[in-house]
Amino acid sequence: MSILVVGTAAYDALKSPFGEVERALGGSAVYFALAACNFSHVSICAVVGKDFEAADLELLEHKGVDISGVERSNGETFFWKGEYHEDLNTAHTKETRLGVLADFDPQISDEHVDAEVVFLANVDPVVQLKVLNQMTNPKIVAMDTMNFWIDGKPNELREVLSQVDMLLINDGEAAMLSGSRNILRTGRMIREMGPKTVCIKRGEYGVIVFHEAGMFATPAYPLETIKDPTGAGDSFAGGFLGYLASQHGDLSMHNIRNAAVYGSTVASFTCEEFSVARLARLDREMVDERFELFRELTQF
Amino acid sequence: MSILVVGTAAYDALKSPFGEVERALGGSAVYFALAACNFSHVSICAVVGKDFEAADLELLEHKGVDISGVERSNGETFFWKGEYHEDLNTAHTKETRLGVLADFDPQISDEHVDAEVVFLANVDPVVQLKVLNQMTNPKIVAMDTMNFWIDGKPNELREVLSQVDMLLINDGEAAMLSGSRNILRTGRMIREMGPKTVCIKRGEYGVIVFHEAGMFATPAYPLETIKDPTGAGDSFAGGFLGYLASQHGDLSMHNIRNAAVYGSTVASFTCEEFSVARLARLDREMVDERFELFRELTQF
Repeated sequence: MSILVVGTAAYDALKSPFGEVERALGGSAVYFALAACNFSHVSICAVVGKDFEAADLELLEHKGVDISGVERSNGETFFWKGEYHEDLNTAHTKETRLGVLADFDPQISDEHVDAEVVFLANVDPVVQLKVLNQMTNPKIVAMDTMNFWIDGKPNELREVLSQVDMLLINDGEAAMLSGSRNILRTGRMIREMGPKTVCIKRGEYGVIVFHEAGMFATPAYPLETIKDPTGAGDSFAGGFLGYLASQHGDLSMHNIRNAAVYGSTVASFTCEEFSVARLARLDREMVDERFELFRELTQF
Repeated sequence: MSILVVGTAAYDALKSPFGEVERALGGSAVYFALAACNFSHVSICAVVGKDFEAADLELLEHKGVDISGVERSNGETFFWKGEYHEDLNTAHTKETRLGVLADFDPQISDEHVDAEVVFLANVDPVVQLKVLNQMTNPKIVAMDTMNFWIDGKPNELREVLSQVDMLLINDGEAAMLSGSRNILRTGRMIREMGPKTVCIKRGEYGVIVFHEAGMFATPAYPLETIKDPTGAGDSFAGGFLGYLASQHGDLSMHNIRNAAVYGSTVASFTCEEFSVARLARLDREMVDERFELFRELTQF
């Protein structure tokens, strides 16, 4: 199955105890696509500015990502500056420049309207709804969101939630959305809002998935060095949906379990280097090798 | 194999968002024993005051715990008053009265000096060393410790660490001991201090074990209600060592994996009610049933 991801392409300035980069490729759609391309065909719908570099588009193309839906607009590419201190689970935003993202109004091309798997990355829920309304044949629709929209556009967010199959969200934001700090209740309450599958991402502690056939939880893969966790959540989503798309969208509990481990596997690679450096030279063989290490780590 | 646990018997005043109790049975040795007794024979070495109630000793005896090593001393039983707020992972100490614990100088009786499995619960490392020196035939020695001793008696603590087979410790204290917030480095650094097996407890996020044959990690069992996490760490230790003792102390990676899941299983029951209420009416069948739910939760 073919995947369409709608989200951001960005330049990030990143700093962590392990170094810094001043202007590196980032954005939810980029991380998602570079993760998902290890499993399935993926197309990006995003907007970039005049400053977006050809080399970055070439990287995506080189990985087999369809970039025909990347719109180039007058203005600057979305820019985010963030820092991580000792606690690598928390990003501290230093600067955000929306640039061309401020007017992002994605028009899905004829070539992409019939994508069977759709990932609505973390953008304005109004934009997410507009995209959803253009899709003609979606079999699996998954979405992400964040505190900004939970607070700022609760009704619009509820409307999108009622129309999607899956929500992938981090634990703090899941608690905010449900109003409960209990993970079990949170999972149940969000499922009642619409998505039949709810994936709660817990940073270095792993992920827990609530599904109509039960729960699945996995710890994260312990890493020697976590240089830069930026994009780990979107990489998880890419691995998760990429795998499910490769299984013809069969959402059995068996596949959901494997998908969560594949998502966690790809996300662990993302954290090992700054920006998309590690994803850029990842291949399926490396992914499968670490998938087996996940088995050793967790099976009894 | 028979287990000896040296630690505290206490009365706790506990408060959480789910209620409160004013004076309830607690203490590391008590929680440990009530967890371990589901798997192996366990003897307690602890000191209590004149106020310690017969009904509490009877509860332990009724569960098959050997209480002949519980010394009754003049004074008050160790008392701890703690509160949990919304974040149930963190206990806020409101009051501590050492009482008879201040002069705890355990003399291991002839009947107990040849115990093959020893758990040195979280007490002064000087006391832990004294106990260890009295043991004649220990096959597995495990210990716990806390920030107070890491800060206050680092040399004595290092000496005990160099003599034990296992350390079971929570994540914050493990980071303090190693000086690293990276879990992989922390596990490796602590193993270099002595214990060949290091179990790092991560509260609601589960546990990770570092062993010479590799790593094992499991999430915690998600609970509908976490009323009172007091004693969860000691219950984990009881399930972990109780299971290993029932396997004749075979520390293969296979057994370590099962032991970590049994420990997590028993700890999950502990959290469901205040004090030892849930442990008091736990049996092996209930434990095994939840052990299988753990499998469903985590296997892929």
